[in-house]
Amino acid sequence: MSEVIATYLVHDQKEDLEKKAEGIALGLTIGSWTDLPQLEKEQLKKHKGTVLSVEKLEEDEKTNAYFGGKRTKGLIRIAYPAANFSADLPAVLTTVFGKLSLDGEVKLTDLEFSSGFAQHFPGPKFGIKGIREKLNIYDRPLLMSIFKGVIGKDTAFLKDQLAEQLAGGMDLVKDDEILFENDQAPFFERVRMGRAVLDQIENETGRKALYAVNLTGRTYELRDKARRASEAGASALLFNVHAYGLDVLQALAEDPEITVPVMAHPAVSGAFGASGHYGVAYSLILGKLVRLAGADFSLFPSPYGSVALEKSEALAIAGECKSDYSPFREAFPVPSAGIHPGLVPILMKDFGTDCVINAGGGIHGHPNGTSAGAAAFSSAADAVLSGLSLDEQAEKDEQLRIALALWGQYEAAR
Amino acid sequence: MSEVIATYLVHDQKEDLEKKAEGIALGLTIGSWTDLPQLEKEQLKKHKGTVLSVEKLEEDEKTNAYFGGKRTKGLIRIAYPAANFSADLPAVLTTVFGKLSLDGEVKLTDLEFSSGFAQHFPGPKFGIKGIREKLNIYDRPLLMSIFKGVIGKDTAFLKDQLAEQLAGGMDLVKDDEILFENDQAPFFERVRMGRAVLDQIENETGRKALYAVNLTGRTYELRDKARRASEAGASALLFNVHAYGLDVLQALAEDPEITVPVMAHPAVSGAFGASGHYGVAYSLILGKLVRLAGADFSLFPSPYGSVALEKSEALAIAGECKSDYSPFREAFPVPSAGIHPGLVPILMKDFGTDCVINAGGGIHGHPNGTSAGAAAFSSAADAVLSGLSLDEQAEKDEQLRIALALWGQYEAAR
Repeated sequence: MSEVIATYLVHDQKEDLEKKAEGIALGLTIGSWTDLPQLEKEQLKKHKGTVLSVEKLEEDEKTNAYFGGKRTKGLIRIAYPAANFSADLPAVLTTVFGKLSLDGEVKLTDLEFSSGFAQHFPGPKFGIKGIREKLNIYDRPLLMSIFKGVIGKDTAFLKDQLAEQLAGGMDLVKDDEILFENDQAPFFERVRMGRAVLDQIENETGRKALYAVNLTGRTYELRDKARRASEAGASALLFNVHAYGLDVLQALAEDPEITVPVMAHPAVSGAFGASGHYGVAYSLILGKLVRLAGADFSLFPSPYGSVALEKSEALAIAGECKSDYSPFREAFPVPSAGIHPGLVPILMKDFGTDCVINAGGGIHGHPNGTSAGAAAFSSAADAVLSGLSLDEQAEKDEQLRIALALWGQYEAAR
Repeated sequence: MSEVIATYLVHDQKEDLEKKAEGIALGLTIGSWTDLPQLEKEQLKKHKGTVLSVEKLEEDEKTNAYFGGKRTKGLIRIAYPAANFSADLPAVLTTVFGKLSLDGEVKLTDLEFSSGFAQHFPGPKFGIKGIREKLNIYDRPLLMSIFKGVIGKDTAFLKDQLAEQLAGGMDLVKDDEILFENDQAPFFERVRMGRAVLDQIENETGRKALYAVNLTGRTYELRDKARRASEAGASALLFNVHAYGLDVLQALAEDPEITVPVMAHPAVSGAFGASGHYGVAYSLILGKLVRLAGADFSLFPSPYGSVALEKSEALAIAGECKSDYSPFREAFPVPSAGIHPGLVPILMKDFGTDCVINAGGGIHGHPNGTSAGAAAFSSAADAVLSGLSLDEQAEKDEQLRIALALWGQYEAAR
């Protein structure tokens, strides 16, 4: 049967989670059941929500103390027939978590789409494999950096920064997510500037790279803007999907005239992901759903920096980006924030070779400048891949040595 | 200066909220300040975020216990120059709460728009005054009801329910928010059915009413669908704005070919509104921002039912819908869920005459049926307006008497 299965983490005031689950399954579908005449039961059977499981979890004393009373903690799984909603994410979210999101301590932790329903969604247009083919890099994590201090600066300033980052060996460079349409560095000027710099690097060195330009503006302009960006030579788009909605990302991914990868930024997602009692799990919103909707890359806070996720949450996001259970192409996980060369070994241990190492301050803050910072990252990744420790690698690499002296190494920091 | 001021409620691990505030104001704008050369300071001055105030609040023991350590609680107000972002809500939200939403215990509690910036937004197309003119009702709250048990039912079934609700005296009837595009009751068929039923009521009784049909589907289809609905005779649209994004609501409100009021449903908003530590305050998201983006009505959980908001939160939402400090038309507050005739006096005391009394079970569950339930609500509102108690009114009104016997009155329930 075509359906969507939702998993909820509840902290309920009442003991009886089975009754609660039944209430949700009916309340969010046909409303009532036992009082219906037999004929109506036959007619409505295919629309009825079904409780698949109810699992009580160990009580959480801190939660009880916070709410000032005992809460029964548990996981509830409910199947919703696809006959009840149209094949779009706003309809799915409104059904499984519309009213329910307002009804006490309930967090949506997972959604499973039957294959009949999943086929309505695109997944990434390129995915890990397609991105690797674009870049002709198959055997190591990709290296990405971000512009620094861009607000109020013009396109020429950005051009120098882009060239410097690429010269250092970056495979990807992305706009700052808070760089919007502005007179000094307009979107299409950035697109053309990026094309020129990328072409120059390729001509000079044979290396390919991508520059993700921030797609911003009014919702109804975005698709056309992205089409024109593709045509004007953009190589990738950065998108603040959670400030718009997953359905807009999907529209971008599905569009045949938008011929570039899309990078989903996690901006604003903490508003619904951060609470342990409410909202939507990060693994779902930054992992499974952005992949389903078509993101080629998903950025999320790394577990190492100051803006940090719990390691289990960060790993769960990456797991969803690459899970074999998904019918879609894999998305590149991009654990971000607080990344410096000394973290590369743990990052590759935690997230594997199929990830993007993304740095800002850890590149630009290198005492010898941005290119040196980029080179230190390359060197650190090389070390891991060739089985050397960072200290061993640092003996033959000056820039890495300097980076490690400044930021330390993961083990040392513990 | 054109700017947006954000207020944050923080529960921080560190004592020094001034330092935190400075970090946010710089981090979300130009990145750094003290190290900049004088010339760059001059250039970037107009882009720099400014801390307006930092107010420490009394510590919250429950929060400390929950997080397992002392949290410094406070309110931080920061002004962001409009020069930093384009004039759209995704850009504003990404700037003031993009990365920050992921950075510890921070809740966005308010946004203030300078008038130069606010002028980029439409506000309600009709507002309370325009809706009252449409309905020719000026001196009492509006009465609204919702269809019941609609999933799997056809348009003929809905037609009967609509007629019955209107016959009972409802001014507004709305679709269930979980009714999506489906074969048995397609959107445009519902629009035409609604037009016919509303016309018939008006011809027979002279009474005008509105039927809010649920606007659903893919984002990029919605605007055209709404235009065609207007043309086909729709009288109002229901919209699950938080499953799409506020910018889409704005596009609907701005469109000159969409000539009907829009009713904003709170579905999914609990995901970012419910936590005391994270997300966005309900008064902002269900009040100020939906009004700014163009909702004529804002639905939210009433403080009386089972899906309930704290009374202070519900009043704050209604306050934002009608605040004189806003440059926009007023939006109708619609406190919903758990409403029955016995609550009408407290509801009118709390929300005033300019509100919508919205009921589902409290109408359909009347022992004498939907029309009787609707009549009981009318009667209860009449009583309040003419200074009678519900008991006095019930002496001359059988349907109200029956409703009160079933559901009781607010005072009695306490």
